[in-house]
Amino acid sequence: MQTDRDRSRRNDPEGMRNRVLNAAFNMFQANGYCATSMQDVMNAAAVSGGALHHHFPTKRSLALAVFDERVAPAVRETWIDPVRSAASFGGGVRSVFDDIASGLERRGSVTGCPLNNLAMELTVVDRAFRKAATSIFQEWQHALAECILDTRGGRKLSKDARMEIATFIVACYSGAMTLAKTQQSAEPLRSAAEILMRWLHLRNLDC
Amino acid sequence: MQTDRDRSRRNDPEGMRNRVLNAAFNMFQANGYCATSMQDVMNAAAVSGGALHHHFPTKRSLALAVFDERVAPAVRETWIDPVRSAASFGGGVRSVFDDIASGLERRGSVTGCPLNNLAMELTVVDRAFRKAATSIFQEWQHALAECILDTRGGRKLSKDARMEIATFIVACYSGAMTLAKTQQSAEPLRSAAEILMRWLHLRNLDC
Repeated sequence: MQTDRDRSRRNDPEGMRNRVLNAAFNMFQANGYCATSMQDVMNAAAVSGGALHHHFPTKRSLALAVFDERVAPAVRETWIDPVRSAASFGGGVRSVFDDIASGLERRGSVTGCPLNNLAMELTVVDRAFRKAATSIFQEWQHALAECILDTRGGRKLSKDARMEIATFIVACYSGAMTLAKTQQSAEPLRSAAEILMRWLHLRNLDC
Repeated sequence: MQTDRDRSRRNDPEGMRNRVLNAAFNMFQANGYCATSMQDVMNAAAVSGGALHHHFPTKRSLALAVFDERVAPAVRETWIDPVRSAASFGGGVRSVFDDIASGLERRGSVTGCPLNNLAMELTVVDRAFRKAATSIFQEWQHALAECILDTRGGRKLSKDARMEIATFIVACYSGAMTLAKTQQSAEPLRSAAEILMRWLHLRNLDC
């Protein structure tokens, strides 16, 4: 007998693939890659083993797709796009920190930054994971370095110096997020943002 | 038949306990907590299942002992003691970053900071792990805040402001270490140290 669910599975392979990616992204983020089995993903996405393995023959291939199709877009949406479209660089960075801290406070729990979480867990496991995480970090740093060029202080700096500052901002955020996750509090993010903002202002990098 | 190894096991329970803690610390650091089984620890420490379970009835109790008896001392030896005994705060922080970066370059690989690695992996798993990691981070931050009091700029600051700066330094280091681990390069640590040093100097917090 063919149920509605069977039919929807057959007729919407792209929808099923998306459900699997969403489930894997959420579970990797909540519990980690190692603690998540393919069976867990099957259950959470409500797909059969055959369907899961058709799209993702291995857990490794699933993780690489999660990096590419979920983690990278999350960094673009949360960080890169808002900073690019902000009226000033300092205002953009400040609002990203504020939005993330407010989101954590609303949710009442901190699972951390998806990129940092997966990078920390997986870069030692496999060269392909390391490459995937590095390329997202670099896209993020390059985007910030480009925005720094539009600031009063930034246009006097070399490309390397702008990249160094972008790296510093990403490092501050990543480390503050680790502290936030450990303490289950947005406070380290708010406090790091305060210092970062005063420093950007001092160096004429805020606008 | 009683072998030498059996005899040494029986006669040196403290030595055996230390071997287990060392093996667990190294494997948690290299592969993560979740990827390490009690069987792996038994094999690496060359102890029997009975002996392992006598000292650490659960993997959780082993991890808590690793936090307390290996991770906390590592933070003291690597960070707290060198900064405390340095001629100046700025010089101390700079030499810690330099020593860690040089160590990574010598080894040719970056497994990351043991505290950050375990905190990132385990704070979502269990409240006791979160408490253990938080208490080590706080000891680290309090020690830095105390050293900041001895600087020209620091003695003019409130206790909260000194603690905020200490948190910022720990966040910069932790995030730079995540980038270093992802890229398998000491460069993000060296570059973050440069910016941090100039900032400490600007705020008269270096000496």
